[in-house]
Amino acid sequence: MTTKIKIGIVGATGYTGVELLRLLSSHPNAEVTTVTSRSEAGIAVADYFPSLRSIYDLAFQTPEDAGLDHCDLVFFATPNGVAMKEAPSLIEKGVRMIDLSADFRIRDIPTWEKWYKMAHAAPQLVSQAVYGLCELYKDDIAKAKLVANPGCYPTCVSLPLLPLLQAGRLKANAPLIADCKSGVSGAGRKASTHALLCEAGDNFKAYGVSGHRHLPEIRQTLSGLQNHVSDGLIFVPHLVPMIRGMHATLYLHLQEHTDPEALLREYYRDSPFVDILPSGSTPETRSVRGANLCRISVQKAPDQDDVWIVLSVIDNLVKGAAGQAVQNMNIMFGLPETTGLTNAPLMP
Amino acid sequence: MTTKIKIGIVGATGYTGVELLRLLSSHPNAEVTTVTSRSEAGIAVADYFPSLRSIYDLAFQTPEDAGLDHCDLVFFATPNGVAMKEAPSLIEKGVRMIDLSADFRIRDIPTWEKWYKMAHAAPQLVSQAVYGLCELYKDDIAKAKLVANPGCYPTCVSLPLLPLLQAGRLKANAPLIADCKSGVSGAGRKASTHALLCEAGDNFKAYGVSGHRHLPEIRQTLSGLQNHVSDGLIFVPHLVPMIRGMHATLYLHLQEHTDPEALLREYYRDSPFVDILPSGSTPETRSVRGANLCRISVQKAPDQDDVWIVLSVIDNLVKGAAGQAVQNMNIMFGLPETTGLTNAPLMP
Amino acid sequence: MTTKIKIGIVGATGYTGVELLRLLSSHPNAEVTTVTSRSEAGIAVADYFPSLRSIYDLAFQTPEDAGLDHCDLVFFATPNGVAMKEAPSLIEKGVRMIDLSADFRIRDIPTWEKWYKMAHAAPQLVSQAVYGLCELYKDDIAKAKLVANPGCYPTCVSLPLLPLLQAGRLKANAPLIADCKSGVSGAGRKASTHALLCEAGDNFKAYGVSGHRHLPEIRQTLSGLQNHVSDGLIFVPHLVPMIRGMHATLYLHLQEHTDPEALLREYYRDSPFVDILPSGSTPETRSVRGANLCRISVQKAPDQDDVWIVLSVIDNLVKGAAGQAVQNMNIMFGLPETTGLTNAPLMP
Amino acid sequence: MTTKIKIGIVGATGYTGVELLRLLSSHPNAEVTTVTSRSEAGIAVADYFPSLRSIYDLAFQTPEDAGLDHCDLVFFATPNGVAMKEAPSLIEKGVRMIDLSADFRIRDIPTWEKWYKMAHAAPQLVSQAVYGLCELYKDDIAKAKLVANPGCYPTCVSLPLLPLLQAGRLKANAPLIADCKSGVSGAGRKASTHALLCEAGDNFKAYGVSGHRHLPEIRQTLSGLQNHVSDGLIFVPHLVPMIRGMHATLYLHLQEHTDPEALLREYYRDSPFVDILPSGSTPETRSVRGANLCRISVQKAPDQDDVWIVLSVIDNLVKGAAGQAVQNMNIMFGLPETTGLTNAPLMP
Repeated sequence: MTTKIKIGIVGATGYTGVELLRLLSSHPNAEVTTVTSRSEAGIAVADYFPSLRSIYDLAFQTPEDAGLDHCDLVFFATPNGVAMKEAPSLIEKGVRMIDLSADFRIRDIPTWEKWYKMAHAAPQLVSQAVYGLCELYKDDIAKAKLVANPGCYPTCVSLPLLPLLQAGRLKANAPLIADCKSGVSGAGRKASTHALLCEAGDNFKAYGVSGHRHLPEIRQTLSGLQNHVSDGLIFVPHLVPMIRGMHATLYLHLQEHTDPEALLREYYRDSPFVDILPSGSTPETRSVRGANLCRISVQKAPDQDDVWIVLSVIDNLVKGAAGQAVQNMNIMFGLPETTGLTNAPLMP
Repeated sequence: MTTKIKIGIVGATGYTGVELLRLLSSHPNAEVTTVTSRSEAGIAVADYFPSLRSIYDLAFQTPEDAGLDHCDLVFFATPNGVAMKEAPSLIEKGVRMIDLSADFRIRDIPTWEKWYKMAHAAPQLVSQAVYGLCELYKDDIAKAKLVANPGCYPTCVSLPLLPLLQAGRLKANAPLIADCKSGVSGAGRKASTHALLCEAGDNFKAYGVSGHRHLPEIRQTLSGLQNHVSDGLIFVPHLVPMIRGMHATLYLHLQEHTDPEALLREYYRDSPFVDILPSGSTPETRSVRGANLCRISVQKAPDQDDVWIVLSVIDNLVKGAAGQAVQNMNIMFGLPETTGLTNAPLMP
Repeated sequence: MTTKIKIGIVGATGYTGVELLRLLSSHPNAEVTTVTSRSEAGIAVADYFPSLRSIYDLAFQTPEDAGLDHCDLVFFATPNGVAMKEAPSLIEKGVRMIDLSADFRIRDIPTWEKWYKMAHAAPQLVSQAVYGLCELYKDDIAKAKLVANPGCYPTCVSLPLLPLLQAGRLKANAPLIADCKSGVSGAGRKASTHALLCEAGDNFKAYGVSGHRHLPEIRQTLSGLQNHVSDGLIFVPHLVPMIRGMHATLYLHLQEHTDPEALLREYYRDSPFVDILPSGSTPETRSVRGANLCRISVQKAPDQDDVWIVLSVIDNLVKGAAGQAVQNMNIMFGLPETTGLTNAPLMP
Repeated sequence: MTTKIKIGIVGATGYTGVELLRLLSSHPNAEVTTVTSRSEAGIAVADYFPSLRSIYDLAFQTPEDAGLDHCDLVFFATPNGVAMKEAPSLIEKGVRMIDLSADFRIRDIPTWEKWYKMAHAAPQLVSQAVYGLCELYKDDIAKAKLVANPGCYPTCVSLPLLPLLQAGRLKANAPLIADCKSGVSGAGRKASTHALLCEAGDNFKAYGVSGHRHLPEIRQTLSGLQNHVSDGLIFVPHLVPMIRGMHATLYLHLQEHTDPEALLREYYRDSPFVDILPSGSTPETRSVRGANLCRISVQKAPDQDDVWIVLSVIDNLVKGAAGQAVQNMNIMFGLPETTGLTNAPLMP
């Protein structure tokens, strides 16, 4: 490829936006040509994000001035409700699009509208959108015009479950528990009291116990795989006093004589971003910090028949957001899936 | 009470030891007269712990020089395996004893020896020891010579379960999952790589998945309450990058028509240190930081029949260790249970 | 004293407000009868701050409904610019007042207006207000109707300097450098991007280098003590990724043959809240966490004549705000200065 | 270059070692062929550091078995005192060497022996060793057989001072203050109580006030530049509760009519790793997290004649250790200085 993919990023002042900028800065086949921010229009990216000084020579523009239709691909790193308004016109002009918000993740419009509490502005595009869980939908992503980049929890929970559900190994009518923990960057960069260092620091709590938007998204992914098992999903997210990282602890009732580790290893044999740990290991979130990886381990629950504990970690901003978006881009543009995504995690 | 309880603390250089010193410094009816540390003998407490300057005018002594037999009560804040060696002689001399280590927590000697990997030095005292879960065994504690102060996880997990098991409301043959999270102070003050700020900070992981010493302790507490239900207990601890705090997320299958919140409220109506939160609340660990409290909330799992999510928080060093030890002392010496334990949590 | 001081707190939803509530909850001679918050009126304090459940049975009221004129003392824990509007009417009604904001700290009105960027609403009260640096102005505080509680940096910087300036031991025309570091709670509880855990966490930076509001406040305190020396003060604040705590590193040029440690010890001989550490010690912020203390140490700069390094730590929310306010209250009401302020610091 | 530089790393289980592994994993011209660790010999690197799974297919070897003499270059990431013993034999065999410890940093042997409290094992090599402060000694480094990689504090403090001293702009006989702050990874990965999360977390303190090993190293670098000015250096390090990052706050007395920012910009015009910020900026440590950068800003001290505040940040493990070592390697092997060192910092 001699010419680079021309990239636009809408809403690049948040954490997923700046993470896209970081990852794309070392991507050999992509060039960010346009970044938009209504509030910071006119400000140089390098002034707004000093970590990007000397790396980007671009300024934020308003979406109107940005000429996004000259891009090959536009990432939306915007709050929910923005991408769906802009998508029809861009898609019509032949610009491809990866939406990191939730606008195109849920196929059932009433379900989406119930959870996101607004009317959907482009329901006609929802069925065209491909859900960008790369390890499950690679072939569809390769042909997609519009990719709905998965949520962080859905990625962290679904990846370890896919092989087990596809093999039909979960017990019917048994609970399927996902006790999940996220770093605070999942809450975004918007000023809010609950994400202050003095509120979220040195503290641990559950939230969204009565219902979280990622629950229907996980159920949708899993529902097609083993009939009705996903109905039993219980999902409780917790907030961890750290910046990046997500950990899912899954409690699964598997059918007798199942070897879940073997199923996972086989399923992900050719997946460069999913790493099945040796027996007895426990993954830690820092082992994927800054990298587009999901590490998974499997252990039998002590003293219990057929109950298994599956642990899964991702960096919520990378495999849970911007990294998976770049992985989707690679697939959409026929590049090797790992292009620009091979840097080692930052440890410590 | 005109004379104060004369207190000795053995092994006062760790976190439970210094927390005892903090709590007892404002206790109106107790006076710490003796603190021991083999490694720091001769050093003033106020030099070793600058936070206690001008509060304690004591120096560490070797256990041999300390004259512990002149104390009314001795707390052992020692590693496992120390208290059981000293207990017979102290108890014989009429000194009462609260052991914050695990030496006297497990009634079945072979079980203890299997999990703690040593021979028990005082098996004859194990049956005399009272398990100091104050809300369950208050009457026995009042008469005890030797109290085995409960572990942090067992306290955090057992308190919300007691009322439900005593009422016989758990489904038989259903899993009972305790997904638990602890701050790093639970690992103690000993130099170790895994508890370094650069290893445990900005990181989250599970540990002890294949088996943790607190599992038999929790099972022992619960086993008497509702037949065999505790056999189904699955317990996974996790390490949270914070100093103090412990959070249990319990997934319970309750029998139809159970109102767990009402059962908890009724059970703990007169318990000053167990706080049942209003429906829909989620407790956070900082809401009990530094205080001898357990806060519990109950929620129905969305879309599931009869599955309930119970959240429980304590400060692992207070209600999970030194605070409960002082509560035990109050009960043993006929003082109001809340004496010296009424300070508000530190927030933020 | 048989009746308790009736206390009102205006603006009790911020960190200094909730810290006042914590400290006053164990004060034997004070009772908080009224708390106001315009935004949270009608909400129970215990619902808003779960750490105070079962401790306060009060709800926030609007200032208008609160009946503050029935209080003996009102604390203002409000943003700058609020207390000065309410003070005239309260003072006239005989209610005493301690303002934790900056409204009455600066005696020179134009200086105040320049730094705080608003017109002063009650300039006539400024000269009546007593600057509540307890260790310097105790006699005036005892008679005050209106106390301006000092800022956190001014407290941390001024306490170690007072004895040296009063003794006239600083060199004239030499720089006097205060390199200061604060935990993030100094930024308050208001939602703001820069205080998010993901912005302020795992990060260190200076701020306000070109000028900080606490600079004129420190200069005012010091200016009267040794002529013109305070003109040379250079003050650079930094933000530390921790919740509570403040550390000042002072670089002082002292006249030959000065023994600064001896001067500090002598000056603070009867001050229960200022602790001069032994030679060679370095104070750490956690040694005062949650306590109304300032710990100070003094060391000679290696290889330099007459340059001394003085280190000073406080908890910015306690001796730097709410704790000093309670100390001021004790002095104003003729109570022993330490009443309600003797709890040990929380460590770890 | 068709063949890659064959790299050995001695002592690769610490933080500088694993950081070298991370950085070299994406270096196009280098290949790590050998890693040694006496304690972990036989263990796969990827098992010891899960962050490096699938990146390295190497196991730790004992230094004896490692065949280091087949390497083109050996990095020593060892405790002080190890490299000096191995250097003579390696250098004699024509293997080049970069020592990240302090063994070859100080040219005056008695000074080294006084501060490092041991006899030097290879004094004859000290004069051959080149001090690897790349921006100052690039030409010498290009020809070096043995490079002494600078300490983190010396790098962070010296870089902003070099241009000012070379231009002779500091006032004689004036103090030169470096108030420095470091993340905890500077203490290394060895188990130690003071670096535990529960000791160093949520805490701030100075240390080494009476003398720190980096003081003679900084003085040596600066002493040649402007006569005797470095004698006045006062250096106070502090410990920040964060993992990576170092911040120096310098207080400088400059001669009249000096424009320090212009001097810095000119001096570092062609230095890709030193970034002079715009006037009024304050650098933050996270803006260089994971990257081989030093960012510097300059401000006039308010209200003072000729006193300037210079702020400097680095990642102590990158530009302060492993990154600068790779930069030295690039220079030694005739590669472009930025090879393998262009990744954007990780933010947040």
